[in-house]
Amino acid sequence: MNQDYIKPDNWSIIEEGFEPERVKSSESLFSIGNGAMGQRANFEETYTGDTFQGSYIAGVYYPDKTRVGWWKNGYPEYFAKVLNAPSWIGINVTVNGEALDLHTCKQVEDFRRELNMKEGWLSRSFVATLPNDVQVKVEVLRFLSLELDEVGAIKYAVTPLNADAEISFTPYIDSGITNEDTNWDDQFWNTTKLTYTSNQAFIEAHTMKTNFHTCTFMQSQCFVDGKISKIEPQIEQTAQKVSFEYTAEIQQNQTFTIHKFGGYTVDRNHDKDNLVSAAKNTLEKTLQLGFEGLLDTQKQAWASIWDMADITIEGDVKAQQGIRFNILQLNHTYLGKDARLNIGPKGFTGEKYGGSTYWDTEAYCIPFYMATKDQQVARNLLEYRYHHLGKAIENAEKLGFTNGAALYPMVTMNGEECHNEWEITFEEIHRNGAIAFAIFNYYRFTGDYSYIPEKGLEVLIGIARFWQQRATFSTAKNKYVILGVTGPNEYENNVNNNFYTNYIAKWCVDYAIENINKVKAEYASDFTRIMEKTNLSDAEISQWQQVADAMYFPYSDEHQVYLQQDGFLDKELITVDKLDANQRPINQYWSWDRILRSPYIKQADTLQGFYFFEDHFSTEELQKHFDFYEPFTVHESSLSPCVHSIQAAKLGRMEQAYTFYLRTSRLDLDDYNKEVHEGLHITSMAGTWMSIVEGFGGMRVKNDMLSFEPQIPKQWQAFSFKVNFRNQILKVNVSQKETNFELEGTTDLTILVNGTPITVTRNNLVKV
Amino acid sequence: MNQDYIKPDNWSIIEEGFEPERVKSSESLFSIGNGAMGQRANFEETYTGDTFQGSYIAGVYYPDKTRVGWWKNGYPEYFAKVLNAPSWIGINVTVNGEALDLHTCKQVEDFRRELNMKEGWLSRSFVATLPNDVQVKVEVLRFLSLELDEVGAIKYAVTPLNADAEISFTPYIDSGITNEDTNWDDQFWNTTKLTYTSNQAFIEAHTMKTNFHTCTFMQSQCFVDGKISKIEPQIEQTAQKVSFEYTAEIQQNQTFTIHKFGGYTVDRNHDKDNLVSAAKNTLEKTLQLGFEGLLDTQKQAWASIWDMADITIEGDVKAQQGIRFNILQLNHTYLGKDARLNIGPKGFTGEKYGGSTYWDTEAYCIPFYMATKDQQVARNLLEYRYHHLGKAIENAEKLGFTNGAALYPMVTMNGEECHNEWEITFEEIHRNGAIAFAIFNYYRFTGDYSYIPEKGLEVLIGIARFWQQRATFSTAKNKYVILGVTGPNEYENNVNNNFYTNYIAKWCVDYAIENINKVKAEYASDFTRIMEKTNLSDAEISQWQQVADAMYFPYSDEHQVYLQQDGFLDKELITVDKLDANQRPINQYWSWDRILRSPYIKQADTLQGFYFFEDHFSTEELQKHFDFYEPFTVHESSLSPCVHSIQAAKLGRMEQAYTFYLRTSRLDLDDYNKEVHEGLHITSMAGTWMSIVEGFGGMRVKNDMLSFEPQIPKQWQAFSFKVNFRNQILKVNVSQKETNFELEGTTDLTILVNGTPITVTRNNLVKV
Repeated sequence: MNQDYIKPDNWSIIEEGFEPERVKSSESLFSIGNGAMGQRANFEETYTGDTFQGSYIAGVYYPDKTRVGWWKNGYPEYFAKVLNAPSWIGINVTVNGEALDLHTCKQVEDFRRELNMKEGWLSRSFVATLPNDVQVKVEVLRFLSLELDEVGAIKYAVTPLNADAEISFTPYIDSGITNEDTNWDDQFWNTTKLTYTSNQAFIEAHTMKTNFHTCTFMQSQCFVDGKISKIEPQIEQTAQKVSFEYTAEIQQNQTFTIHKFGGYTVDRNHDKDNLVSAAKNTLEKTLQLGFEGLLDTQKQAWASIWDMADITIEGDVKAQQGIRFNILQLNHTYLGKDARLNIGPKGFTGEKYGGSTYWDTEAYCIPFYMATKDQQVARNLLEYRYHHLGKAIENAEKLGFTNGAALYPMVTMNGEECHNEWEITFEEIHRNGAIAFAIFNYYRFTGDYSYIPEKGLEVLIGIARFWQQRATFSTAKNKYVILGVTGPNEYENNVNNNFYTNYIAKWCVDYAIENINKVKAEYASDFTRIMEKTNLSDAEISQWQQVADAMYFPYSDEHQVYLQQDGFLDKELITVDKLDANQRPINQYWSWDRILRSPYIKQADTLQGFYFFEDHFSTEELQKHFDFYEPFTVHESSLSPCVHSIQAAKLGRMEQAYTFYLRTSRLDLDDYNKEVHEGLHITSMAGTWMSIVEGFGGMRVKNDMLSFEPQIPKQWQAFSFKVNFRNQILKVNVSQKETNFELEGTTDLTILVNGTPITVTRNNLVKV
Repeated sequence: MNQDYIKPDNWSIIEEGFEPERVKSSESLFSIGNGAMGQRANFEETYTGDTFQGSYIAGVYYPDKTRVGWWKNGYPEYFAKVLNAPSWIGINVTVNGEALDLHTCKQVEDFRRELNMKEGWLSRSFVATLPNDVQVKVEVLRFLSLELDEVGAIKYAVTPLNADAEISFTPYIDSGITNEDTNWDDQFWNTTKLTYTSNQAFIEAHTMKTNFHTCTFMQSQCFVDGKISKIEPQIEQTAQKVSFEYTAEIQQNQTFTIHKFGGYTVDRNHDKDNLVSAAKNTLEKTLQLGFEGLLDTQKQAWASIWDMADITIEGDVKAQQGIRFNILQLNHTYLGKDARLNIGPKGFTGEKYGGSTYWDTEAYCIPFYMATKDQQVARNLLEYRYHHLGKAIENAEKLGFTNGAALYPMVTMNGEECHNEWEITFEEIHRNGAIAFAIFNYYRFTGDYSYIPEKGLEVLIGIARFWQQRATFSTAKNKYVILGVTGPNEYENNVNNNFYTNYIAKWCVDYAIENINKVKAEYASDFTRIMEKTNLSDAEISQWQQVADAMYFPYSDEHQVYLQQDGFLDKELITVDKLDANQRPINQYWSWDRILRSPYIKQADTLQGFYFFEDHFSTEELQKHFDFYEPFTVHESSLSPCVHSIQAAKLGRMEQAYTFYLRTSRLDLDDYNKEVHEGLHITSMAGTWMSIVEGFGGMRVKNDMLSFEPQIPKQWQAFSFKVNFRNQILKVNVSQKETNFELEGTTDLTILVNGTPITVTRNNLVKV
């Protein structure tokens, strides 16, 4: 079912040939970003064909209030959407007065697009014959700077091939943009001021309602055959747009080039009255480096990212390309520099999911960032939730909970819930569990307990309070039950006693109590402060304990498995392999009620619990549950294959693990779910990383030690990855014959390999 | 919790005193209608205070396409909304150049509003002191004609009380209107032409998208002290409005009066190119009668409605006023003249529920119309669904059903589903059962079997096919189950094995098979035609039978009741009387998830099944179920108290039955649920009628005979009602001492009274 038009390459994403129907998909795949902003790979020049324009600024969103249907109490005021930001990439090109537009050209040859992952830039080249028969060669290179993250750079070169020609470049900035997902072409930006000098322009605009103030800016410089050209531009200004037109007579085979720098300054980082001067500052720093100088910093910055984060795979180009693409896009989206930001499921590549924060961060992304960045980055991600604790308590209060119970939002921009479908917003409450689990996971991996007494314990208390209040006592079952939830498998709504939810709820309470006791014993002053702040009593804790101790878990004696929820066995239990292939993915062919009453599982649900709490279950139990649930799983969430890949590897089923790996790592490149035109699946890309490190590498943390049980798919000769474990870097290289461990660090490191302790010393290769 | 500002009166709804905060509620309560159009009781003159403007034309709607959140496959293209229609009632009034506006007057005295139910008109009078200190007396009378149902009439009289004054009337028509529920003040009407003569004006406008063409028209005539005044009007025309200004110098205590006639011609009834000439025709007929002549026809028409439909209650003015208000508003909404129309839950009194058709018609309204109108009216309501059978089959196909299975829409304007919340649209499928039940009920009451071979059987077959396909076999239960439904109690969503749904599903299949056999035996040519049309085979019927025979019903041995759904006993079973009164109605205070996991019942659900299929259960079983479920019922649907009133009466609990009766009959008048400003609850008003006739009167049809078990609340001296049973009129009068039966008919009628057969002959009072 996968598509196949991206050329295999170890270090680049490459498209060859111009296919108009692929434009929107490629705009997603070739997206670029630098953590502070990102863009779809829209063309600089006019394109009148089908396109999805998108340029996004981190943290800038809009609260849409549109209401439809019956409103429910407790719904948030708004549905947050990521906003398409003013455009700065545009460069209109004319040749003898005729617009260059790939949609209207007589012919487009040698079209090639490359996203160079190693060096962090995007290029495009083609030879086009315009309607006026002039043939031009175009070469474009674009990147968003990691060094100066408010700026991006474009080099756009046109060479007339069959005649002399008058060529004009019209770089512009434009705040007259809208969103794809708007209902009525509403504008979400108020443009307040346009200013320009002889070669710089600035548009000040702020978002409606949320009042994010921005300055969009640009500066351009032209060259003929590489020499600076002092053309005086024609400047045009309208209400929401400034453009500079540079025109030159260019001889056949001469090259006319423009360097354009552009970007945004935002009042998240500057005083809103100084945005223009901040932009001028940024432009000055940029010009000191120049285009090539800035590109050099880009190459260095990406070299340093890859040095730590790269995973190599030998003997399987597609697998290699897939994992690098995933690592690249994760780094486009989030670099960990700004603790106010988080990781949107579509990053900067589309509008869907509103650029908001989901439980994906805690459940899937934290391991990647913990192991490939400074551990402060993971701590920042935890603190993001700590800073939102007050809002999580307010959110729970809106739903009727009291006494400091916290329900973290399903979707958020600033800590407030900003999604309004009751089955998600009100019922997909297991998200609270992942937020607690991330605290546990952070401590397990980093050994940094300080986060818990300083901040984490307050979060754990708020979450434990929520679960205790949310569970109710069933007289019929003589147990505590959790009614009316949606589990990770969103193909079930409003079910009772979802195993995953009940299990993680009990675990959250137990873990909170364990840490209360530990902080009490070891961090007396923190303990006193927290008890006062949260007003927690022993009596309340014993209420929690009562709920945790008597939690109900649905179980089938016949199948010897925990049931995904009450009543699961009443379904028509027809496995996925019996489904008509024409009906897949079922979410594109089946009505919602049919999906709901079917047994089909969108993503790991019961198995997600077995993934988080692997130690609580025997391998035999894992196998029983995997064999029961996987055959009903349609993997229509991007978050599904990675967990299954890890578990298949754990069960020694390498062929299946490899299939799941390919699916997760090339989900977007090969467009398995036929939706890549909407944007990329960023958060699941961290799951791809886990498939290799935890799945094939078998990495775990056991008793404060890294533990490995390496395996390798038969399709590969070798693979390697690096892990930052407690500020020492361990490089792991697995081949068909052996596994090598190498340490970049100062202290000897004892690891477990297939259960045997082995000590790795600095710069000494250990072969196993 | 009920409000209390309507004056008790046997025949009128009366408000005294002007309270701005009640304006919107009164606009609902004093609504008028004539089956073809209806209006909220908005003021004719300018009112700048808080108001909800509404004027509605039967059958004219708009398909709103706004999308929010995640779209689900199978959702309809649109969400239909009733449209506020161009306004024809407006008459701006100035006194010495100053606008009369109750919101800005210095003083408003003697404000009185009356909805005269007996004669079918609305009046308003007050004495106002304008900011310029002129005091005027105003008297207004308005009605929508039953005789000429495209026209309404207004008599508006102003008398200056403390000075001579220059008074102007500016009657106008205006198509520049919008809806209350619009998201962005969108306009839904395209105005195409405005024309006028010296005293008539016409606006042609059509709805966007649906293209309903209308002509809104008016004609006016002024009088001074009752004498025709030949004032030349100033005519003003803007893009969407025509107004005629009539100005006169009026002496103190002289009365200046305007008669305004206005209304709509619509292309549902005329050629769209002839709407203006149709309007002129209607105006000509109106003018032949004149205001008083038209008013006389109104009084006669209402006298004839009341002659058949009135229920009298002696000794309890509030109860009397309540039932008449209900009967009045039902007749405002639907008179049975136009088989393309149906009964919207808010009639012509507001926008909510989109003026659409719900299962309310079949479950609650048909008995009222069967018994108080010609039986053709009820047959028209059945045929409405017959005409929509093709669309119901298409609707089922969208959800994946095949082979002619029919799923009637939850909400419809033209047979298409036009609501998009999955838990309602896709899951509240029990509506299909009510549509089949109405066919059974019609035949039971009228004895007219012809409908079934002619039309009804096709509907029954489509419905039976749906249920057979919708049920699935549970290996675990060894029974057929129906998963993922919403029952009549909409405070539960996506539950499994809702008793009511499963029960009516089984009944539908059994009833379809019973009628297939009967038609086969007795209507051979119809049978052949239907079998060919539906392609039905014996093999398919035996599949149906298998499902019906092995249907699962959840049951509690402990409580000896059928369970509302699987898992009901896992809830915290705290009865309603233990709830904090400040938290009621819970739908205004609780979040949706809390409501869903609570045991609280919005309206009769299991008990609705016991109501429909009373004969299938013993009185002891009814009592057990009533005692189990009623204590968890919050009656937050207007459709709830009537069923409970009937069942309480059946169980001999007259005090409880009376309380439920008051609640249903005065739900809007006393605004129990604090929402009357949004409009009236029309369809539940038919339930009020049932509370008296079926509840206190104990009327049933048994073995083709009317059967009565009369009881009377101790608060009443007597009550009476009439029933059209098979084209003979039986009048029933119940007092504390005895029950009298009187027949207006030609044939002796044998009825059962408390089980004993009694024969009633024409014009002979029978006392029991």
